[in-house]
Amino acid sequence: MSDPVYKKIEIIGTSAASIEDAIASGVTAVVKTDAGKADWFEVQEIRGHITDGKPSQYQVVLKVGVHVG
Amino acid sequence: MSDPVYKKIEIIGTSAASIEDAIASGVTAVVKTDAGKADWFEVQEIRGHITDGKPSQYQVVLKVGVHVG
Amino acid sequence: MSDPVYKKIEIIGTSAASIEDAIASGVTAVVKTDAGKADWFEVQEIRGHITDGKPSQYQVVLKVGVHVG
Amino acid sequence: MSDPVYKKIEIIGTSAASIEDAIASGVTAVVKTDAGKADWFEVQEIRGHITDGKPSQYQVVLKVGVHVG
Amino acid sequence: MSDPVYKKIEIIGTSAASIEDAIASGVTAVVKTDAGKADWFEVQEIRGHITDGKPSQYQVVLKVGVHVG
Amino acid sequence: MSDPVYKKIEIIGTSAASIEDAIASGVTAVVKTDAGKADWFEVQEIRGHITDGKPSQYQVVLKVGVHVG
Amino acid sequence: MSDPVYKKIEIIGTSAASIEDAIASGVTAVVKTDAGKADWFEVQEIRGHITDGKPSQYQVVLKVGVHVG
Amino acid sequence: MSDPVYKKIEIIGTSAASIEDAIASGVTAVVKTDAGKADWFEVQEIRGHITDGKPSQYQVVLKVGVHVG
Amino acid sequence: MSDPVYKKIEIIGTSAASIEDAIASGVTAVVKTDAGKADWFEVQEIRGHITDGKPSQYQVVLKVGVHVG
Amino acid sequence: MSDPVYKKIEIIGTSAASIEDAIASGVTAVVKTDAGKADWFEVQEIRGHITDGKPSQYQVVLKVGVHVG
Amino acid sequence: MSDPVYKKIEIIGTSAASIEDAIASGVTAVVKTDAGKADWFEVQEIRGHITDGKPSQYQVVLKVGVHVG
Amino acid sequence: MSDPVYKKIEIIGTSAASIEDAIASGVTAVVKTDAGKADWFEVQEIRGHITDGKPSQYQVVLKVGVHVG
Repeated sequence: MSDPVYKKIEIIGTSAASIEDAIASGVTAVVKTDAGKADWFEVQEIRGHITDGKPSQYQVVLKVGVHVG
Repeated sequence: MSDPVYKKIEIIGTSAASIEDAIASGVTAVVKTDAGKADWFEVQEIRGHITDGKPSQYQVVLKVGVHVG
Repeated sequence: MSDPVYKKIEIIGTSAASIEDAIASGVTAVVKTDAGKADWFEVQEIRGHITDGKPSQYQVVLKVGVHVG
Repeated sequence: MSDPVYKKIEIIGTSAASIEDAIASGVTAVVKTDAGKADWFEVQEIRGHITDGKPSQYQVVLKVGVHVG
Repeated sequence: MSDPVYKKIEIIGTSAASIEDAIASGVTAVVKTDAGKADWFEVQEIRGHITDGKPSQYQVVLKVGVHVG
Repeated sequence: MSDPVYKKIEIIGTSAASIEDAIASGVTAVVKTDAGKADWFEVQEIRGHITDGKPSQYQVVLKVGVHVG
Repeated sequence: MSDPVYKKIEIIGTSAASIEDAIASGVTAVVKTDAGKADWFEVQEIRGHITDGKPSQYQVVLKVGVHVG
Repeated sequence: MSDPVYKKIEIIGTSAASIEDAIASGVTAVVKTDAGKADWFEVQEIRGHITDGKPSQYQVVLKVGVHVG
Repeated sequence: MSDPVYKKIEIIGTSAASIEDAIASGVTAVVKTDAGKADWFEVQEIRGHITDGKPSQYQVVLKVGVHVG
Repeated sequence: MSDPVYKKIEIIGTSAASIEDAIASGVTAVVKTDAGKADWFEVQEIRGHITDGKPSQYQVVLKVGVHVG
Repeated sequence: MSDPVYKKIEIIGTSAASIEDAIASGVTAVVKTDAGKADWFEVQEIRGHITDGKPSQYQVVLKVGVHVG
Repeated sequence: MSDPVYKKIEIIGTSAASIEDAIASGVTAVVKTDAGKADWFEVQEIRGHITDGKPSQYQVVLKVGVHVG
């Protein structure tokens, strides 16, 4: 059967700078460790730490879609 | 009956640059094609493409509220 | 009983500039008015106003976690 | 293919009087502007404005089912 | 074991007059047919029919809590 | 930073008469006890008590949006 | 009060052959055991067993709407 | 058609002692009153009463799966 | 701005034969009436009518993604 | 207007011992700091820390219902 | 501790032919690559591509339960 | 980029004794098989088997957060 199959990896990327950077950090981590080609991401949740009364870290929970066969 | 009525349009704006730009791209498209005054937006979902192991396009699913009468 | 307890405050921060700034504006408001140490935030919803066919204000609904004892 | 097809229109009816009037206002607006026969509605959300410490406007977000073919 | 137990019955009450009447119609039906004392209701969904471009019947999906032992 | 900030208060208004009255009862309670201007409400849940086989009290869980700065 | 009332029965139909057959199996079971006329179904969930690395049984969780008065 | 069919019963078990006891109380009640073999349970919601500032009763809303044919 | 924009149309396709046919019927209807290229669909809900104790019509609520610019 | 009004406080109780203790810790904290009589709780979420490969702290997110007038 | 443990793998099976075939394609892929015995699947989402105005590929997002110890 | 990254593993721990033991069984299984440091868990679902009319096994679906870089 040659129909394509994908899996979804759930990952949390983080960044002190921006939501976009936190997404990139999560995507990069999947690419490094998972066999297969990462094709898309879906944001599940945006959260973060507060230090001294200010947002100090964005944490973005992602699902990353990876082509596996 | 003179009570205001609004409709919601579901649109997906995209941008290679940022989530805010993807929102603007979707809002602009609604403004161009829908009769009525666009008043507000609600983000439904944030997703995107990955190219060469990096986020290459943000896709923001929006509902845009339009004043129709 | 010395186990830590936290409460969650629901707040809406706004900004004309970016989603990150709207988050910061909400976090700052909690810090000013609530006793206890703000520890983390969770984004509930991202919305905004449209003026002249363009996004003019980001509104981010947050829950802020505050250490209360 | 002669199987019936319906579409759903998302509309917000409003009224200062009651939730039922707000529903009617939304249904009426769909009937005026959409081709096809409106068959049913589904309430998605009930919200409203507060003026001088009292509810002053009910806003009911509806999906209206319209027979299109 | 003498701890109270309740069951939930899912029922749809209808009325041409109002949402409150549709709720009463559903509650009454449960009371007639179910053994045990009906204690509370929870609205799950509000929908309805449209006839000649106007809401003609409210349908309220309810869960009714019944004390069973 | 002069961007407006709002908080949401979760309140349950009740009434033996109607859903609209239960909403008003909850809104009034927020207005009495919370600093800041109440701007809008969002219905979260509609429930109620049953006495002698009839709905005897509507309970409406609301979030009330209050302008805080 | 002559407004129609419906109840919803939650049932799980199963089939080794297809999702449509699993739906039919659940609907048939409701029809056999419940007083009243079954009018519609709503799919809640689709799941199944795996045997020897292949789907061997489809399980479809349904709500079946039954006219009760 | 010999494919197995199950129904789900929604029940609320209660206990002053623990969540596990509240689950057992609900399961026992289904077993006593429903024809068919109870096979599994799914926790929907955990709530409870507070008396004199302490949790005094756990209430666990369950769905119980019953083999009906 | 040349970033692609999509809208989502909510449609209900129906069929007496199968879920797949109901999907096709909804997709076809969007293609006939909406400007723009239909690219993908998302199933929102599967429901249907029951006639003489058997499923007689599948109704599939879809969102259809249409490329609009 | 003498209809009762309740508010909901969102609190996180924690305990190294059990979920029930974490609930009690959250309820106790609300009772100490909030005017009004705490009547019921609703579990929103159960989470916890892991230390040395074992659950070391249960965190239960609760809404506590408080009678306010 | 000899209590069984399972993990859930999120996978997307695809097929041009039917939803059932797309499920089988996803299940087969899990079986090939994951240690442990695949026991059950849960459908999360049904979507698909449209080509020339017709559904051309079904995509079924599944969670597959695998016995791991 | 040195921002921390976490992944979430979905696991089902089981126990005949208690919900807390089922959580521990799932956490232990993740620790044994996954590279990286397990930091927290989130309960997704509580279910179980019934044998001879009594709960005989608690099954807790967890997401376990693991520090991966």
